[in-house]
Amino acid sequence: MYDLTALGIRAKQAAAALSQCSSAEKDAALLAIADALQANVSQILKANQKDLDAAQANGMSKAMQDRLRLSRERIDGIANAVRELVSLPDPVGLVLEGGRRPNGISITKVTVPLGVVGIIFESRPNVTVDCAALCLKSGNACILRGGKEAIHSNLVLTQVMQQALAGTAVPADAVLLVEDTSRETATALMKLNQYVDVLIPRGGAGLIQAVVQNATVPVIETGVGNCHAFVDQSADLEMAVRIVENGKTQRPSVCNALETLLVHREIANTFLPLVKARLDQHNVELRGCPKTREILGDRVVPATEEDYYTEFLDYILAVKVVADVDEAIAHIARYSSHHSEVIITNNLENSRKFTSMVDSAAVYVNASTRFTDGGEFGLGAEIGISTQKLHARGPMGLRELVSYKYIISGNGQIR
Amino acid sequence: MYDLTALGIRAKQAAAALSQCSSAEKDAALLAIADALQANVSQILKANQKDLDAAQANGMSKAMQDRLRLSRERIDGIANAVRELVSLPDPVGLVLEGGRRPNGISITKVTVPLGVVGIIFESRPNVTVDCAALCLKSGNACILRGGKEAIHSNLVLTQVMQQALAGTAVPADAVLLVEDTSRETATALMKLNQYVDVLIPRGGAGLIQAVVQNATVPVIETGVGNCHAFVDQSADLEMAVRIVENGKTQRPSVCNALETLLVHREIANTFLPLVKARLDQHNVELRGCPKTREILGDRVVPATEEDYYTEFLDYILAVKVVADVDEAIAHIARYSSHHSEVIITNNLENSRKFTSMVDSAAVYVNASTRFTDGGEFGLGAEIGISTQKLHARGPMGLRELVSYKYIISGNGQIR
Repeated sequence: MYDLTALGIRAKQAAAALSQCSSAEKDAALLAIADALQANVSQILKANQKDLDAAQANGMSKAMQDRLRLSRERIDGIANAVRELVSLPDPVGLVLEGGRRPNGISITKVTVPLGVVGIIFESRPNVTVDCAALCLKSGNACILRGGKEAIHSNLVLTQVMQQALAGTAVPADAVLLVEDTSRETATALMKLNQYVDVLIPRGGAGLIQAVVQNATVPVIETGVGNCHAFVDQSADLEMAVRIVENGKTQRPSVCNALETLLVHREIANTFLPLVKARLDQHNVELRGCPKTREILGDRVVPATEEDYYTEFLDYILAVKVVADVDEAIAHIARYSSHHSEVIITNNLENSRKFTSMVDSAAVYVNASTRFTDGGEFGLGAEIGISTQKLHARGPMGLRELVSYKYIISGNGQIR
Repeated sequence: MYDLTALGIRAKQAAAALSQCSSAEKDAALLAIADALQANVSQILKANQKDLDAAQANGMSKAMQDRLRLSRERIDGIANAVRELVSLPDPVGLVLEGGRRPNGISITKVTVPLGVVGIIFESRPNVTVDCAALCLKSGNACILRGGKEAIHSNLVLTQVMQQALAGTAVPADAVLLVEDTSRETATALMKLNQYVDVLIPRGGAGLIQAVVQNATVPVIETGVGNCHAFVDQSADLEMAVRIVENGKTQRPSVCNALETLLVHREIANTFLPLVKARLDQHNVELRGCPKTREILGDRVVPATEEDYYTEFLDYILAVKVVADVDEAIAHIARYSSHHSEVIITNNLENSRKFTSMVDSAAVYVNASTRFTDGGEFGLGAEIGISTQKLHARGPMGLRELVSYKYIISGNGQIR
């Protein structure tokens, strides 16, 4: 059995030291990592090639192979993303609130790192560096557990980062990799409460559910996005077509892409042919309710109950005609993963109702759900998009990677 | 098997309606609950007597029986605590931050209720009303699961609250009780992810660990407090005696009471006899390290490794002489439950080091750890004290019982 406890102890010690580093020390460490990645391109690409060879031998899909592949350009991109963190404000040490109490004690609520962050992810090796850098900037040590498909890439990326850190004030153990990629070790990491403060899974629905089901360490659930657009009676129909097209087709494989279109019945006859014509240009398959098929014809596949629950991540869109905004809100309450939803409307009361009653991380009026993203929200970078309500909801940037503590000072007060 | 799903569905529906209630409507509901509790005193006391009779027949300890007991005065106290929530600000609907992005979309981050809060607690029936009222004020429906020792009390308290709500804008199902007190049903509640947004266990270490180990619903860990005082070389010794006495003896059964005393070796010869003399007045048992016993004599019990990990909740104090502030910080890092710790010192650098490096929810300089409390911190009320780092840390008031969502509006922006 792989010794996770030893890794946990090293991470905990590194976290204690890292929590005391200044912003300048952390930024210097980030720059050292970025430089080291570019200085070691050939070594990194050689390791990545091993993973790619194995992937090909195992018959991995071309799309998955592309996600696994690194190149000089991609490594430059990864290094530059690390450098961009330097310009972002340090989220540690911020005074959130405070004051003097009637008895004279002063209370200050100050941001502190979470401690040790465990990240469980799949086969994209860029995640390894992204997550390590975000954790480092926010003062957290990280324990990375990537997929076995990327193990050679992850080993060398972690080594390069650790060697870069060795010359800085940040301990090399602030970035640790679980070198054993067995399922048993992943499960043990999910239960390593003594050393891990929070777990963030990054990947598909299966991975995230496995973590939620097995972890005893606190988890931040990320990523699953069954997103809805509701086109209200008063919508600007050209705007609605544009927002639906963008939401479905600009990048269908991501969590903020649209999966279901709800259309007010009073405009369905006009709107559905318009939106179908536009989506046909992208070969989007529609799966419609009976009313949708009545309007658009039998070539539209009938939508099943299951379709309304599905995050297609593909050129497929479920479509349903609804009576009004209330039915749209009820449909979303039932089927949504509570990530991002949009109403396209010109009716103020319906817009108010939708934003107030829809219980999702991001609720839009007349703008594409594709904006649910740390960069687009101005957070500078993101480690994932939370679909739970504890701690952080929606895009998680550096500010979402910290906790706080209370510092209280007095001159002898007792109760 | 008890039908928790039906309860979950009712709670979810109630939460949706409650999230739309105005502050005035929620406050009116709280007043109705307070009035109903006082109007139904005899019915409540009769039910409570059934629990007390069973407790006596089962040989429950006197102290536990006292925690279980209600009286007219205690019910008045409970009702008045509910009324006090009315004067506190509504934590829902606050704009936390926001702004316009370069592309013209406006983003607003607004507080929203968590949704459905599950609370698992032991035998104190006042918790039933306290938690229900705090959840209601923060717009959350709650599912309460109390101990079987208090089931008759809890049933009637919940009925009285539901009847009171029936005449208000808040749905009666906003306060639900799990009427089956079996362990299997408690475990099922911990895995009711579809309907429960967060679980808060309130009780002893055993209960909390059971929830952490079994829950797949996000949990906020509360309450276990192995709190430390470090008396530095430069401490005002009279102040140190006062703070240690207060921390240990003012209410030993609570989580912010002191459990371990660390003393700088340069003042141990002077300080230990002083503090022992004061603690002797309260019959506090000291368990000391070899150096402590050298100074105070063999009647001091030797401290075991286990003692340093223990939350005694009793008139027992572990004592250790340390070389300096660094050893004190290292001891706390190893043994603490990260609840509350204090340094008594007059040395600025040591005070800075201690508050910066000690990784606990509340870190004190020259004041009693007994102040770690929602009321003392000015939060108005508290549902528990979090000892984890996700979401909330330290005393959790109304503001810690909400999440947030992003509301984004545009005029047709796409990516």
